[in-house]
Amino acid sequence: MPQNVYDRQDFFKNYIKLDRQVKGLEGAPEWPQLRAMLPDLNGLTVLDLGCGFGWFSRFARENGAKFVRAIDISEKMLERAEEMTSDDNIKYERANLEDLILAEGEYDLVFSSLAFHYVANIASLIKKIGIGLKPSGRLVCSIEHPIYTAPQRPKFIANEETGDKSWLLDNYQKEGPRITNWLAPEIEKQHRTIGTYINTILRNNMQLSDFIEWCPTEEELKRFPTRESEVNKQEILSDIVL
Amino acid sequence: MPQNVYDRQDFFKNYIKLDRQVKGLEGAPEWPQLRAMLPDLNGLTVLDLGCGFGWFSRFARENGAKFVRAIDISEKMLERAEEMTSDDNIKYERANLEDLILAEGEYDLVFSSLAFHYVANIASLIKKIGIGLKPSGRLVCSIEHPIYTAPQRPKFIANEETGDKSWLLDNYQKEGPRITNWLAPEIEKQHRTIGTYINTILRNNMQLSDFIEWCPTEEELKRFPTRESEVNKQEILSDIVL
Repeated sequence: MPQNVYDRQDFFKNYIKLDRQVKGLEGAPEWPQLRAMLPDLNGLTVLDLGCGFGWFSRFARENGAKFVRAIDISEKMLERAEEMTSDDNIKYERANLEDLILAEGEYDLVFSSLAFHYVANIASLIKKIGIGLKPSGRLVCSIEHPIYTAPQRPKFIANEETGDKSWLLDNYQKEGPRITNWLAPEIEKQHRTIGTYINTILRNNMQLSDFIEWCPTEEELKRFPTRESEVNKQEILSDIVL
Repeated sequence: MPQNVYDRQDFFKNYIKLDRQVKGLEGAPEWPQLRAMLPDLNGLTVLDLGCGFGWFSRFARENGAKFVRAIDISEKMLERAEEMTSDDNIKYERANLEDLILAEGEYDLVFSSLAFHYVANIASLIKKIGIGLKPSGRLVCSIEHPIYTAPQRPKFIANEETGDKSWLLDNYQKEGPRITNWLAPEIEKQHRTIGTYINTILRNNMQLSDFIEWCPTEEELKRFPTRESEVNKQEILSDIVL
């Protein structure tokens, strides 16, 4: 069983304060670009991998999806999701994404927001997704940018003269687990290169149709001046949306 | 007219000493992976963009290509290429890649090794390539990894405790020219994100079939211990092969 950070009290109490949990999709700065990649949801059968509080699952149903199977590893997240949902056509399910079983050609859309970088065996998961999608189906997903997951000791340093921040990048080619202190100590993420993500998708009979390295716009930075981490990210790069 | 570094004496005298110039394709550490992406060259009409000394153009002909149009901006490079070539079916041509004119559906293969990061208007060039390729045609290219072209002041710094090197990454999202001191002072390259390269290709009716972030293997590092820059790169990442 992999680490389930969401059920750790120290992580969870900070996690639920994030804008993307309090405000839902609109609180996630990358949502407009992720949304633009979605197909018309009307009548679709959807799989939501790492559904958290179920914000996307409800969005999908409100926008015409026929059925949503929503999966998360966290009991706490799913409890909260159930409380916020009254819809028999969203089926929440507790599972480790690595143990997922998918029937062939069942889904029109597989959606996953910022979950894949917690999954150790991504090749197996992507293969299952490729099988689980209908021939015309679509995977829309975001991951934390590998530039951010790469270093063993992630940090920015400031240039002494200019004050500009640089990200200390190393170990990009060394794939595997990384321990970070994001929201709580010793959170484990899985680092993989961009090439590995893309080629794993291509090798499983999927085509790449879009690839965004998201960062906030100047306007978003003005609207949310306190988003320190996003401000940093603008200087470098941020989450990848496939 | 963009900068033509190859005809600058200070650059050229160092450039021609690189393994990839002295030994040709076998001197380029990424060649095995680039070669593995090539189609069977037999009977193909090939366009070689940024052909340099013509190593690839001759390789293509030796492996059955019917005709190679080989383009470079550098007079010096082309002079040397002509000297090394006796083959009427390789046509060398001096041109700025940005001024290239291609007829529709003329080429089976467009090849380009480490040239695109000198081209300012990549969207225009990729569009022309998309038009110039036959419907079954292929673009095989490598670029310097955007992680390396991003910073305004590119450098590694060593960790005081461990001695491990980290790359100082900044300005990744700020596309545009960068001035570096690679082989000579004030060499201008064009920085673009990985997303821009990939999406420019996808928007021009090409499919992505492979994407490699090249780095030397452990065995290569043992064989070539003096490849300092490649040793650094192994810790981070290196050229992209599309």
